[in-house]
Amino acid sequence: MESFAVGVDLGGTMIKAALVERGTGIVEEAVHMTEAEKGPESVLDSLADIIRALHSAAPDGQVGGIGLGIPGAVNWERTSVLYPPNLPGWGIVDVRAELCSRLGAEYEVFVENDANLAALGSAHYSTGKPYDSFIMITLGTGVGGAIIYNNKIFRGSTGGAGEIGHFSIDFEGPIDRYGIAGAVEAYLGQRFLSRFARFKLISQKESLVHKMSAGNDLVDLTPLILFEAASAGDELSTEILAWAGHKLGCALASAINLLDIRKVIVGGGLSSAGDFILGPARRAARQHVMPDARDDIEIVQETLGNQVGMLGAARLVFEYLDEQPPSTGSGTISM
Amino acid sequence: MESFAVGVDLGGTMIKAALVERGTGIVEEAVHMTEAEKGPESVLDSLADIIRALHSAAPDGQVGGIGLGIPGAVNWERTSVLYPPNLPGWGIVDVRAELCSRLGAEYEVFVENDANLAALGSAHYSTGKPYDSFIMITLGTGVGGAIIYNNKIFRGSTGGAGEIGHFSIDFEGPIDRYGIAGAVEAYLGQRFLSRFARFKLISQKESLVHKMSAGNDLVDLTPLILFEAASAGDELSTEILAWAGHKLGCALASAINLLDIRKVIVGGGLSSAGDFILGPARRAARQHVMPDARDDIEIVQETLGNQVGMLGAARLVFEYLDEQPPSTGSGTISM
Repeated sequence: MESFAVGVDLGGTMIKAALVERGTGIVEEAVHMTEAEKGPESVLDSLADIIRALHSAAPDGQVGGIGLGIPGAVNWERTSVLYPPNLPGWGIVDVRAELCSRLGAEYEVFVENDANLAALGSAHYSTGKPYDSFIMITLGTGVGGAIIYNNKIFRGSTGGAGEIGHFSIDFEGPIDRYGIAGAVEAYLGQRFLSRFARFKLISQKESLVHKMSAGNDLVDLTPLILFEAASAGDELSTEILAWAGHKLGCALASAINLLDIRKVIVGGGLSSAGDFILGPARRAARQHVMPDARDDIEIVQETLGNQVGMLGAARLVFEYLDEQPPSTGSGTISM
Repeated sequence: MESFAVGVDLGGTMIKAALVERGTGIVEEAVHMTEAEKGPESVLDSLADIIRALHSAAPDGQVGGIGLGIPGAVNWERTSVLYPPNLPGWGIVDVRAELCSRLGAEYEVFVENDANLAALGSAHYSTGKPYDSFIMITLGTGVGGAIIYNNKIFRGSTGGAGEIGHFSIDFEGPIDRYGIAGAVEAYLGQRFLSRFARFKLISQKESLVHKMSAGNDLVDLTPLILFEAASAGDELSTEILAWAGHKLGCALASAINLLDIRKVIVGGGLSSAGDFILGPARRAARQHVMPDARDDIEIVQETLGNQVGMLGAARLVFEYLDEQPPSTGSGTISM
């Protein structure tokens, strides 16, 4: 059974990839600029380059396959990406075929939504290890989500399950980028939260945020600045993060009631705000869950940051290998 | 492989039970008053009586086991009920042991939440047959729900998944019986909807509802009267059912976004209002789901009524039998 796989996180700005050893985790990392504006062919070439480099770093020159995470939808078979929003010019691209043709071999290639892979990586290598089942929510530019049920990704009917970012907590609330009213992303997505904070703070000149941000009427305000200001004792920033945490807790409570999955891991950049957001989230969730779940819910921060995505990508490969009949060596790619 | 099982629906008023043939459905039905006020011992005696009667009706005198649905929670092993709300005096009761001791045999007995069994029955014998996965919502005194994923009940971590009745669509909305703000049940539960309708209609003397209900300021108003008035062309009743349907659609959309399960079956008494509720529910759901799900969602009415609960209860037994190693006759109960 191969013990190495390559896990790739294909972002709009950077390609991050790692050689992952099954029982150990990341043993080698590599990055490459995505240069998404050059189009799919160029990005696929870069992907092939980075994979080749990591493959050659495998101690026995063998990897079991390649897992690749993207923000967006994939097909059920996990071979193709479908109109990834941060990769202009990509329609439906059969990544497996494209990479195999570039690498000159029949690689096992699996593509999957990046939030699903972050959750899978957390489940097997990080904060999620103690839990058989949990909900993951990633607070970044957008708000992604995933459901891990019995240590596997719960995929739904078409592979798109877990979209807690587009889960509504108020049917007459603010509108997200899909036109969904009251969606979590319309409160906690970076752009939405920044705008809300700007409007709250613009006339509150005593807030530390004004000193800490670049000026020009807070147009460059980010959640990170809010967190830094809150950490420095700024009351208004603390209130805004608590407001966001309350919304998060309300959404998580409904998800917990529906799924009866009571553990939640929060990842993504904004999760670094830690208890400024998670404290209020825990209080709100406790108020909105079924009584017998109240003392059983846990909402915790992912500690491994972005590495969980690459680990989850590699884990997909290991899961595939585990499901194969005893190997006769086929499926292994030697260099 | 045994082809018969007894499916029981233990309600607060009536015990309904059926002898179910695996490939056929219900072949014999029986009812018994629950007389819940007499306490658990008496109810368990009645259950044993009704099971005995149906067992003797099995053509070869053999049944594979007994499935039993209750409104409320059950333990993970499906042997015990936990504080069923409509059965006063019941705490945690090991129904399997109690029935086996009364029936004088080692029956296979499985208890499960009634909404879960309605969904399972629908999946294998009724409206749910065309779908591998669907969400079921039952609009009755309370609002129950269940998730069928790949033809099985999705149980969550403790067996309580599917509680869409306690799923919130407005974190500042009306409060349900568990104190959850904006829960579906706080709009569509019979008591809540009746009260809302009464307040809406009390001063609208031209509504047909006043003629059709018993008088006394609409204190006896029920959703059934609303449906009858709407069917007779009453505009205000139609509006109220549409209001309820809109709330239902908003909740279903969030559940669809989270689960990526796009088919919904609506059961329970209020589902007989059909398109008065389901039409507005479909429109609202369409507006609130992710774009690629819009043309794929279906929200349909359960056509088999309460029988799906008994069918689902029997189906639990058949699933158990399917999971056993090839039988040597043990597990079968002969009479």
